[in-house]
Amino acid sequence: MSQSTAPRKRLTLDEVHQLSMDALMANGADRENAEATTHFMWSAERDSCHSHGLFRLPGYVASLKSGKVNGKSRPTVTDLAPAAIRVDGDNGFAPMALEVGREPLASRARETGIAALAITNTYHFSALWVETAALAEMGLVSIAMTSAKPMVAPAGGTKPLFGTNPLSFAWPRKGREPVVFDMATAAMARGEIMVAAREGHEVHDGAGIDENGNPTTDPEAILKGAQLAFGGTKGALFALMVELMAGPMVGGPFSVEQKEIDNADGGPAGGAEFLIVIDPVVMSGNAGALDHAEKLFDEILAQEGTRLPADRRYKVRPENEKSGIEIPLSLYDTIKSLT
Amino acid sequence: MSQSTAPRKRLTLDEVHQLSMDALMANGADRENAEATTHFMWSAERDSCHSHGLFRLPGYVASLKSGKVNGKSRPTVTDLAPAAIRVDGDNGFAPMALEVGREPLASRARETGIAALAITNTYHFSALWVETAALAEMGLVSIAMTSAKPMVAPAGGTKPLFGTNPLSFAWPRKGREPVVFDMATAAMARGEIMVAAREGHEVHDGAGIDENGNPTTDPEAILKGAQLAFGGTKGALFALMVELMAGPMVGGPFSVEQKEIDNADGGPAGGAEFLIVIDPVVMSGNAGALDHAEKLFDEILAQEGTRLPADRRYKVRPENEKSGIEIPLSLYDTIKSLT
Repeated sequence: MSQSTAPRKRLTLDEVHQLSMDALMANGADRENAEATTHFMWSAERDSCHSHGLFRLPGYVASLKSGKVNGKSRPTVTDLAPAAIRVDGDNGFAPMALEVGREPLASRARETGIAALAITNTYHFSALWVETAALAEMGLVSIAMTSAKPMVAPAGGTKPLFGTNPLSFAWPRKGREPVVFDMATAAMARGEIMVAAREGHEVHDGAGIDENGNPTTDPEAILKGAQLAFGGTKGALFALMVELMAGPMVGGPFSVEQKEIDNADGGPAGGAEFLIVIDPVVMSGNAGALDHAEKLFDEILAQEGTRLPADRRYKVRPENEKSGIEIPLSLYDTIKSLT
Repeated sequence: MSQSTAPRKRLTLDEVHQLSMDALMANGADRENAEATTHFMWSAERDSCHSHGLFRLPGYVASLKSGKVNGKSRPTVTDLAPAAIRVDGDNGFAPMALEVGREPLASRARETGIAALAITNTYHFSALWVETAALAEMGLVSIAMTSAKPMVAPAGGTKPLFGTNPLSFAWPRKGREPVVFDMATAAMARGEIMVAAREGHEVHDGAGIDENGNPTTDPEAILKGAQLAFGGTKGALFALMVELMAGPMVGGPFSVEQKEIDNADGGPAGGAEFLIVIDPVVMSGNAGALDHAEKLFDEILAQEGTRLPADRRYKVRPENEKSGIEIPLSLYDTIKSLT
């Protein structure tokens, strides 16, 4: 992400929380929905993941204002089978549905070894890692997937069809922060391409193609053409897996269908999420999966130049907790105008 | 894969089957173990996936001869939890353990919605897609992962640590062959790098690094250095996920540990496999997951230049079934010498 020289506003993490609560509740969210949604943005700001922090708040608010999203959602849990549950999000934001689904999902996984959660009728605009990390804090391994409006071409194709389709994976560690990754299967984040277009600089090779299907590093051309998956055909196949799992598998729309039904209010599209949760104690037959994994982590860290995924977030967290974070003043002003 | 001009031997698929059965049974496998293992190689040859076909047979035989692998294995199924089972492979080849685990795993997934299988104490040398495709033929979605001896550097690192760590995913289709992919998280197959080294040609950028950690296209240098994951850091994180899931999660060794205990007989290393199986009818709440997915496949195929994963295999299959396949005469002679 390019460094901007625009004026910035420093906020404590408590102020981040309050700002989000105020904006959401001033626009039709009740306290419970606002708390759940705020927690995801607050967690992102705490770890310097600004792209999933307050930057998303105007979009959340736009979707409340347009009436697309239900700010007073009461998600409901349905049993599909002993290891499979569904949370109907009641047209609210995804964090509220995740909040409701977390305990039932975790307790199933502990009983049955592995369990899955289908989240439907929600609007997804959040980082997946906040949820997988929360499950890891409960001692559980998880994989989360979601799709979004069509932006990425399928393998061999030239038109947008998949969302940026992130997948997050988290592995718990005893007495330590979990190993977590959360990555788009797109080669580049949509937001980064939009920033490059606005600031007039090129993007890296492989990020996308123009309207005629030709590779380009021009962000404007990619926005008119299509993004590409990371790592060529292999990445595009992972994108397909996410598209199937977070769509047809859970009875939710795939990316093309999400676009068709969206009102383009600038907020999240309606979609679904799929979570798989595994209890490593059960699955390893009490073979000490977590202790064993530590030996693998030691092997990785013994190599110069390596780090474990999410370590960068954990490193900045204490300083952000102590001194707060900065957001663009323009974003702060926009948010204040929404409260 | 480069085209060789070496003399070749044509075989019907029945002859492929017989050749494998003869070689395995002449070297200590009983009929049941030989059948299971042969089926995986036969399926690969049928679909022109020669790298997982008879090419593997000398390695299988070497491991029987060295006494590392039990050719008369009787894998046992253990209940870990309602949705989690383990198959102890009794030190046999993985296909035998998969054969024993398939029905219990499928019936769990149908009852509980999602189920997982930990396979331990096996020797893995087979394509993963044969199993995920078999589960798809039973109407089930699956993800399979396995690790192997250290060949791939972790993100930021320069020394071999992960196996080529393949992941296979299969999605069933009504009355049609499933959508299946099976790919190493390594940028390039080990076998291809070895062929390039033997034939003296370069490999593509990104395939690996030399002993000093510098990028190289020299296959010899990569074999002394390390392979890289596909797609940079993102691919390396998928490799880490596979390493954790097919190792500590199932109570099996990770790649570095596999190497430590291996006798280097040229056959497979001892390892584990992890399978997740989901019933899409249950998971979608009877929302017609398979019909819905067909609409997505139609969208993909409407774009020029696309195909669904595994379509290339399905296309060659009828011709191979009718006219047989070809293997290098030298491989045929080697195999005949083992019978």
